Amino acid sequence: MSTFGRLFRVTTYGESHCASVGAIVDGCPPGLTLTPQDIQIQLDRRRPGQSNLTTPVCAHPPSSIFVLIDKTQRNEKDRVLLQSGLEHDVTLGTPIALMVKNEDQRPHDYSETDMYPRPSHADYTYLEKYGIKASSGGGRSSARETISRVAAGAIAEKYLKTAYGVEIVAFVSSVGKITIPSTDIHAPSSSNDDDDDDVQDALSENFRKLLATVTREQVDKETTRCPHPETAERMTKRIIRAKESSDSIGGIVTCVIRNVPSGLGEPCFDKFEATLAHAMLSIPATKAFEIGSGFKGTQVPGSKHNDLFVLRDNGKLGTSTNWSGGVQGGITNGEDVYFRVGFKSPATISQAQATAQYDGQPGSLAARGRHDPCVVPRAVPIVEAMAALVLMDQLLIQNSRSTAAALLPPITTLPPTMVMPSSAKNGKTV
Amino acid sequence: MSTFGRLFRVTTYGESHCASVGAIVDGCPPGLTLTPQDIQIQLDRRRPGQSNLTTPVCAHPPSSIFVLIDKTQRNEKDRVLLQSGLEHDVTLGTPIALMVKNEDQRPHDYSETDMYPRPSHADYTYLEKYGIKASSGGGRSSARETISRVAAGAIAEKYLKTAYGVEIVAFVSSVGKITIPSTDIHAPSSSNDDDDDDVQDALSENFRKLLATVTREQVDKETTRCPHPETAERMTKRIIRAKESSDSIGGIVTCVIRNVPSGLGEPCFDKFEATLAHAMLSIPATKAFEIGSGFKGTQVPGSKHNDLFVLRDNGKLGTSTNWSGGVQGGITNGEDVYFRVGFKSPATISQAQATAQYDGQPGSLAARGRHDPCVVPRAVPIVEAMAALVLMDQLLIQNSRSTAAALLPPITTLPPTMVMPSSAKNGKTV
Amino acid sequence: MSTFGRLFRVTTYGESHCASVGAIVDGCPPGLTLTPQDIQIQLDRRRPGQSNLTTPVCAHPPSSIFVLIDKTQRNEKDRVLLQSGLEHDVTLGTPIALMVKNEDQRPHDYSETDMYPRPSHADYTYLEKYGIKASSGGGRSSARETISRVAAGAIAEKYLKTAYGVEIVAFVSSVGKITIPSTDIHAPSSSNDDDDDDVQDALSENFRKLLATVTREQVDKETTRCPHPETAERMTKRIIRAKESSDSIGGIVTCVIRNVPSGLGEPCFDKFEATLAHAMLSIPATKAFEIGSGFKGTQVPGSKHNDLFVLRDNGKLGTSTNWSGGVQGGITNGEDVYFRVGFKSPATISQAQATAQYDGQPGSLAARGRHDPCVVPRAVPIVEAMAALVLMDQLLIQNSRSTAAALLPPITTLPPTMVMPSSAKNGKTV
Amino acid sequence: MSTFGRLFRVTTYGESHCASVGAIVDGCPPGLTLTPQDIQIQLDRRRPGQSNLTTPVCAHPPSSIFVLIDKTQRNEKDRVLLQSGLEHDVTLGTPIALMVKNEDQRPHDYSETDMYPRPSHADYTYLEKYGIKASSGGGRSSARETISRVAAGAIAEKYLKTAYGVEIVAFVSSVGKITIPSTDIHAPSSSNDDDDDDVQDALSENFRKLLATVTREQVDKETTRCPHPETAERMTKRIIRAKESSDSIGGIVTCVIRNVPSGLGEPCFDKFEATLAHAMLSIPATKAFEIGSGFKGTQVPGSKHNDLFVLRDNGKLGTSTNWSGGVQGGITNGEDVYFRVGFKSPATISQAQATAQYDGQPGSLAARGRHDPCVVPRAVPIVEAMAALVLMDQLLIQNSRSTAAALLPPITTLPPTMVMPSSAKNGKTV
Repeated sequence: MSTFGRLFRVTTYGESHCASVGAIVDGCPPGLTLTPQDIQIQLDRRRPGQSNLTTPVCAHPPSSIFVLIDKTQRNEKDRVLLQSGLEHDVTLGTPIALMVKNEDQRPHDYSETDMYPRPSHADYTYLEKYGIKASSGGGRSSARETISRVAAGAIAEKYLKTAYGVEIVAFVSSVGKITIPSTDIHAPSSSNDDDDDDVQDALSENFRKLLATVTREQVDKETTRCPHPETAERMTKRIIRAKESSDSIGGIVTCVIRNVPSGLGEPCFDKFEATLAHAMLSIPATKAFEIGSGFKGTQVPGSKHNDLFVLRDNGKLGTSTNWSGGVQGGITNGEDVYFRVGFKSPATISQAQATAQYDGQPGSLAARGRHDPCVVPRAVPIVEAMAALVLMDQLLIQNSRSTAAALLPPITTLPPTMVMPSSAKNGKTV
Repeated sequence: MSTFGRLFRVTTYGESHCASVGAIVDGCPPGLTLTPQDIQIQLDRRRPGQSNLTTPVCAHPPSSIFVLIDKTQRNEKDRVLLQSGLEHDVTLGTPIALMVKNEDQRPHDYSETDMYPRPSHADYTYLEKYGIKASSGGGRSSARETISRVAAGAIAEKYLKTAYGVEIVAFVSSVGKITIPSTDIHAPSSSNDDDDDDVQDALSENFRKLLATVTREQVDKETTRCPHPETAERMTKRIIRAKESSDSIGGIVTCVIRNVPSGLGEPCFDKFEATLAHAMLSIPATKAFEIGSGFKGTQVPGSKHNDLFVLRDNGKLGTSTNWSGGVQGGITNGEDVYFRVGFKSPATISQAQATAQYDGQPGSLAARGRHDPCVVPRAVPIVEAMAALVLMDQLLIQNSRSTAAALLPPITTLPPTMVMPSSAKNGKTV
Repeated sequence: MSTFGRLFRVTTYGESHCASVGAIVDGCPPGLTLTPQDIQIQLDRRRPGQSNLTTPVCAHPPSSIFVLIDKTQRNEKDRVLLQSGLEHDVTLGTPIALMVKNEDQRPHDYSETDMYPRPSHADYTYLEKYGIKASSGGGRSSARETISRVAAGAIAEKYLKTAYGVEIVAFVSSVGKITIPSTDIHAPSSSNDDDDDDVQDALSENFRKLLATVTREQVDKETTRCPHPETAERMTKRIIRAKESSDSIGGIVTCVIRNVPSGLGEPCFDKFEATLAHAMLSIPATKAFEIGSGFKGTQVPGSKHNDLFVLRDNGKLGTSTNWSGGVQGGITNGEDVYFRVGFKSPATISQAQATAQYDGQPGSLAARGRHDPCVVPRAVPIVEAMAALVLMDQLLIQNSRSTAAALLPPITTLPPTMVMPSSAKNGKTV
Repeated sequence: MSTFGRLFRVTTYGESHCASVGAIVDGCPPGLTLTPQDIQIQLDRRRPGQSNLTTPVCAHPPSSIFVLIDKTQRNEKDRVLLQSGLEHDVTLGTPIALMVKNEDQRPHDYSETDMYPRPSHADYTYLEKYGIKASSGGGRSSARETISRVAAGAIAEKYLKTAYGVEIVAFVSSVGKITIPSTDIHAPSSSNDDDDDDVQDALSENFRKLLATVTREQVDKETTRCPHPETAERMTKRIIRAKESSDSIGGIVTCVIRNVPSGLGEPCFDKFEATLAHAMLSIPATKAFEIGSGFKGTQVPGSKHNDLFVLRDNGKLGTSTNWSGGVQGGITNGEDVYFRVGFKSPATISQAQATAQYDGQPGSLAARGRHDPCVVPRAVPIVEAMAALVLMDQLLIQNSRSTAAALLPPITTLPPTMVMPSSAKNGKTV
């Protein structure tokens, strides 16, 4: 289905070469101030060729920028057009329809390459699914589909920021094997089965500091959207190498959500991290997701992995570490939520590949035109958008419950194991 | 919400100490032969203390078994009771209700430990969410909740096997840092940024062979459910060490689905891998998910990562490698689907932890009783069950589409780029 | 699907002769005091044979009661068994599973009547749908399925009453052609096309008074659940006549919901009355629904049909009439919601019917055993239950929105046509 | 929510004065030939002012047409613009986005009338719900919202007609008290409680013949869309009278669906008639719904109301009467589905009404401009569209089930009461 969310519901449409792409955002709270610019700012970050705009103080030589900003690519201006749900820049609570016109709707010239399903693309699977596919481009699997997500996410984010001060920041933490040192939780560990000390470093103090402070401004300073300049430099070189060898390379986007209200996430099937994983793995080219300590956390003994409780200045409990990634039992605990999303190397490469035609006849296929050798920098606002959609929807669902519960008379007869122990309440009033 | 799926819909209920746990399975096709034993066999694999039953030819000394099968644990016989939706062991197409009684419903004795939210447990977050929680045990976040999933998954699996010959096999591929060699795609790679050769080994020939052939019988031969005996032995020792040090350790479950029909998965938000990730991250204690090449795949250049097409003996296209994990553009391509799920180390450990009470007062908490030092062996049937639920639901959705499309008259006027090129069709008739 | 609702979600199961019938109620607010008796009281009103219990002060001669309470019918004690979601009679916010055992699970003796699909029953359509059906009884179309609805509705109602003082009262307003005079909005009107005066009486002052004051106690005083004694007497006679002639008769249930919060109902597809109609037409044997003035209202000119606004004592606007039935533009306005549901005459009659066997061969079928000649008295708690489910779900959805909107800063720059005119606010502060 | 359907999903957007109204239609089967004209034809029937186009052979004097076609109304050309999901007029299976621009987006002049919530309009309830409303017009409750429904319905209908030969025809059966004689099932019945003979005429032979044969061409011949010329003439006069007295009048639309596949409709909550009622009561200004014999059927004894089975020429069972309206137990039986929808008199009238301002101050409100005195003729294509959406969605759901069941091996051991008796099968092979 093309709909995401239960109460904050986003339905998208659009292929790469049809009239437009867009979405209907249903369930936005009424009374939110929202301008097209609130949306455009994230669309611009997603747009191919945005780098030279977003990196005015550029530390890299022009040549490296050229690699990432392919001037010959079609210039998708990607202006968002709001159709409904607002007046005077205020939301009405009714569905907000938005669209971005496709400027390139020209018919596709049939060529010999059309006899080949592109390897690791969706050409073959779309035909298997529908028995028909868009005549050119990736159809619905095109990256242009993510425009709608980014726009919808920007609406959710505006609400979250206004009402809760939520901050969502994603950044490129890996390109190929190059990783920001402090975030390298996939780093090699000791080969001694019983040595636990090395794994404890996985979530270093530096990493937590980075998550606590990183801003979009810092991220956008680098063409690669890696907020660690030395690493960014290495990443740039790695991408140039991919480009020069007519190849491509993948990477990892890390994202942090700060000021998350506690209590979000539905037990059982719709745990907070489950819907987050759903959202992230629905982004094209993603293959992996982990929250908190992730795969590395499977190596850390419970005695070191458990997040111990401490009293915060605001009188609420917090945890001294955050291996949980802000979620326990599927429900947010008020700590920062952070997670990683793995993007495979782009499938479209211009070097020849020995593959087969639809009829099975072997042959050689080389992609025409120019292609993005690494998509993770552009994936940053997409990851942020999907995170905003998940948080917004879970928030509305929990709001409904807590409001309903608040209308009930207090129950005074429950045993102390079922409510917050009175000692705790006493403690709070002190 | 406590419901999973759109057409094959599973709704679960039950806390750890209430009268029963169970589920309503709505949307099962009518006319399926289904006995309680079809379900019980997977419930028995999930049950604590099942190891000595399922490993009659036990290669390990009794002491190691003792670690895994804690005789003092309550014996949850976990008999499934079918309430509706069947007659004469045949499904009617109506909702199938199933339940498993909780034998331990005794009231919980209040003690000083109740003044502490257990670290990395859901005690605190449930209170934040609901303002109330079950008096003892993990409530809805208890592992007993997974009984319903396993039972529901067994129903889905029975259909998938009967109608499509689908095979779903999960196994333990890692415990702590110990990993089956051929599956170690998180293994350290060369420290040279530009050296791609090492990553290519990540998905070795051995690994693909394992995925293609591994059976549940092989898996159950080992107490640890690791089908690689030498590794299993090391895992057992690692778990014993955790047990002896009053600690716990996590691990990774790998799962393969064979004979998956092509064309499953909904474009955009409900991609096959997205719903799979959703399902897996909804299992308690999970922190990470990856499909196909996963995080490691982000390091593999496109030229090596792309799965090239080849003609299969059955006249259909297949791929020579399978880094994609059987999914391209969110849609199954007919190759094996395989994925990994990371489980954190269990939070309940009997050594003392320096944490805080609900009121913030610092103190020391040690869990009473005996606890499972490693949950991944028991997680195996849960992962299989959730995989079956995802596959079943996506299958029913796609069935609806393909049946509807098949009733339309053929369209002969489309350009060749929109349908399977005629050369391909010709090829097939040859 | 067997699930109703979006946030307050009820999933039911059970055929007439399986082990049990029941439901999972997901989304109940935590902290609600709820006892089995809260549910049982409505189950008892639904149960066959309840009349002599619920009418202790019986105004009718024993013979008439006998007609309605068939002592030979199986005595379905229908004890509700709560499985989960509660402790100490307080809801936890987790799914509440409930079940009622089927006492009659005996195998059905095959007989010649089984060669006939029963006219106007679901025998034929279930076979067309599933290719298989329960061996006896109505399967899922059995009236026993409504047990789950009544139980779930009682939970919703307990919340609505506790938190909002909502009152839901349904009663029998018609049996056959016999109608409580003041409610007879289907009464014949003048044959003059242009005479509007007669239709205005349709919603008489007496009717509004009845709706405003009627209680369940009044309703239950009569075996027929018609709170108008003279009409009840005629209805009883009509039902006796149906019984004596081995025939059956239908009727209409009218329901009022008082103290409905304003603002409920989702614009467009999920208008309050649309979900209400959905709920009511999902009750077995229903054929018709109308809200407010209903079909009769189509004859009333707008000048008479419009509900004019007046200032209420509480400072809010109300309407002087209520032809709208408490809903305008699909959203509740705070006035009483009232509606009518038409139930067809029961299909099971013991007189012979000239119909055809499954193979088309003509023959004669007479139902064996004793059957209920009129179901509307028992339908009363079912209608109330479905009304409670609709209201509860719409309430939770709107709660979510209003809570979210309340967290936004006030907007002061909107033109007066978009917010409540300041004159109105002034008026309120005065 | 603004989404309708589970597998054929329609999500709409748009207020009366925003940039456009439109919808995303998700789940349309791939390979369907669909042109903009397929949609436009129904949009034109819905459009205000269409009468003189659709009634080229006009039997009425110009003056009466003038009443219905208000030349001074804004001319909504209502051109549908398809955005996605199609190429070369063939559906791709991906979401079809469609939009119709609003030509009148001018700002609304604030006037004294804005101090009044319009009686029986949604002004007041929208403010109660959202705390904000569109500055002018009906916002989301505007009739323009139905444009999206009609367009989406036309897509569903194209599929249903192509694949199943389904025919959906709606018509005006009543305006005020004027009713096509043969359809008058609300006609006065005998005042004798026990006289059943009169009610049997309710579904006359003439009525069944009308349902079996009526076409859209016949319907559109009359400005009032009543296919019974004499009645149409009386209706026209009634509407003129309403117009001349600055008043309005309601009416009833009857709709028949022919060639409905059997087996559609989900037991329990999503019965075919329940989703149909939901769909119809979601149309603005509707107050009532009945299927088959409806309210009148409550007066008909079971012995007369039951639809007896007969063998059809095609070897399948049919029913000799059709009081059920083509649905038994919530599932279609293959007979014609027919139902009635009651529309209240339009709330907007130009005569003065004694009502209150938002602040409660009493005053007099007269609507400005010209208004439609009777909406039922224009409601005809809206009813057809919603019927198509319901049928399409139920069809896709059932397709999924029947396809899944067909893949299972036949079961030969079931008792004869659970499957179609072998005698029946024998009968068919003969």
